[in-house]
Amino acid sequence: MRVRNKPWAKDKIAKYPKIVIKNPQEHAGNWNRLFNRSAPIHLEIGTGKGKFVTGMAKAHPDINFIGIELQESVIVSALDKCLEQELDNVKLLNADARELSEYFAESEISAIYLNFSDPWPKSRHEKRRLTYHTFLAQYQYILDQNGQINLKTDNQGLFEYSLESFSRYGMLIKNISLDLHNSSFEGNVTTEYEEKFSKKGQRIYRCEAVFRDQ
Amino acid sequence: MRVRNKPWAKDKIAKYPKIVIKNPQEHAGNWNRLFNRSAPIHLEIGTGKGKFVTGMAKAHPDINFIGIELQESVIVSALDKCLEQELDNVKLLNADARELSEYFAESEISAIYLNFSDPWPKSRHEKRRLTYHTFLAQYQYILDQNGQINLKTDNQGLFEYSLESFSRYGMLIKNISLDLHNSSFEGNVTTEYEEKFSKKGQRIYRCEAVFRDQ
Repeated sequence: MRVRNKPWAKDKIAKYPKIVIKNPQEHAGNWNRLFNRSAPIHLEIGTGKGKFVTGMAKAHPDINFIGIELQESVIVSALDKCLEQELDNVKLLNADARELSEYFAESEISAIYLNFSDPWPKSRHEKRRLTYHTFLAQYQYILDQNGQINLKTDNQGLFEYSLESFSRYGMLIKNISLDLHNSSFEGNVTTEYEEKFSKKGQRIYRCEAVFRDQ
Repeated sequence: MRVRNKPWAKDKIAKYPKIVIKNPQEHAGNWNRLFNRSAPIHLEIGTGKGKFVTGMAKAHPDINFIGIELQESVIVSALDKCLEQELDNVKLLNADARELSEYFAESEISAIYLNFSDPWPKSRHEKRRLTYHTFLAQYQYILDQNGQINLKTDNQGLFEYSLESFSRYGMLIKNISLDLHNSSFEGNVTTEYEEKFSKKGQRIYRCEAVFRDQ
């Protein structure tokens, strides 16, 4: 995502430490305490401006949501949405997804959402794609036994790559849709990006993937 | 495929028993004898009018090809192509693919092609789809250790279903293309159907799938 720099973002984020959680590694294994309740935790990686994570939080009040986003100038918009909608079941992390397995304990997460992730189309950047096997290994560690990855993208190359990567890792791929907005899928919560590109006639691809019992 | 009835097809087929092989179960384990040479055998299931199997046979003279097609009025066109092009590396079977494991011995086949198979879109017809698990079990039996399935279709529902079915069966899915004619794939041999629907702007989907070591 191309981002307008917002020099004030850092200060604003610092003002809401109960929503944008600092030092996530200190909370590994204890995230439900921050939510003051025990509930399944769903994680969005690359939460952007937060339309998806806040929309999901509203639609599923029984789930605790966490959105990770590295860019301060972007996550600050997600923070705004949490404040406006007074959502108490969303926490945000201004952190790097590469360190995921330090932020959460084994099996602490019930579902992961990867929405319109950066496709990193060049082969030499394969390692940066969020469905590269090193990321999958971290997802496997933090997801519980029935935990699933939900992937949505308009990028054909990333979708092809991700299906192959899931398969290579031995995962079970389910509920593939090669044209989500013209499918029977119900309850789709859109992202900012999804709205924009779907209006331009871009197809949206979606699938789910679970780790098989070892 | 909607087929014009050709009452003379049966007689024509019977005239060329060295190309359209009768009683295939009698040749299980000995197909290379019919080709008078030892070479890898590739099998197309639902060979239609034979554009693909004859095109492949011409492009790959070192491979022995077999095309299976149930409909006499269709396979007779494939026979015509074999005769016109004087191909000696194609045999045709006017037979039912459901009996596949009776026609071939274990590991006798090196590759299977499923091209624009009937999608059987109704749930109650799932068992007829050529990527239903009972078919996969037969493919697993007749394919050799490195044998692979090559699937091509313009039908979105069949492609989604097939990817999921391969995954559920524990197969490794490779080289997925969600838009074959705009991809870097080289050496694509088209079918009659593929030409027609691609010209109408339909996307062609393709993938490969292999059975993992047990």
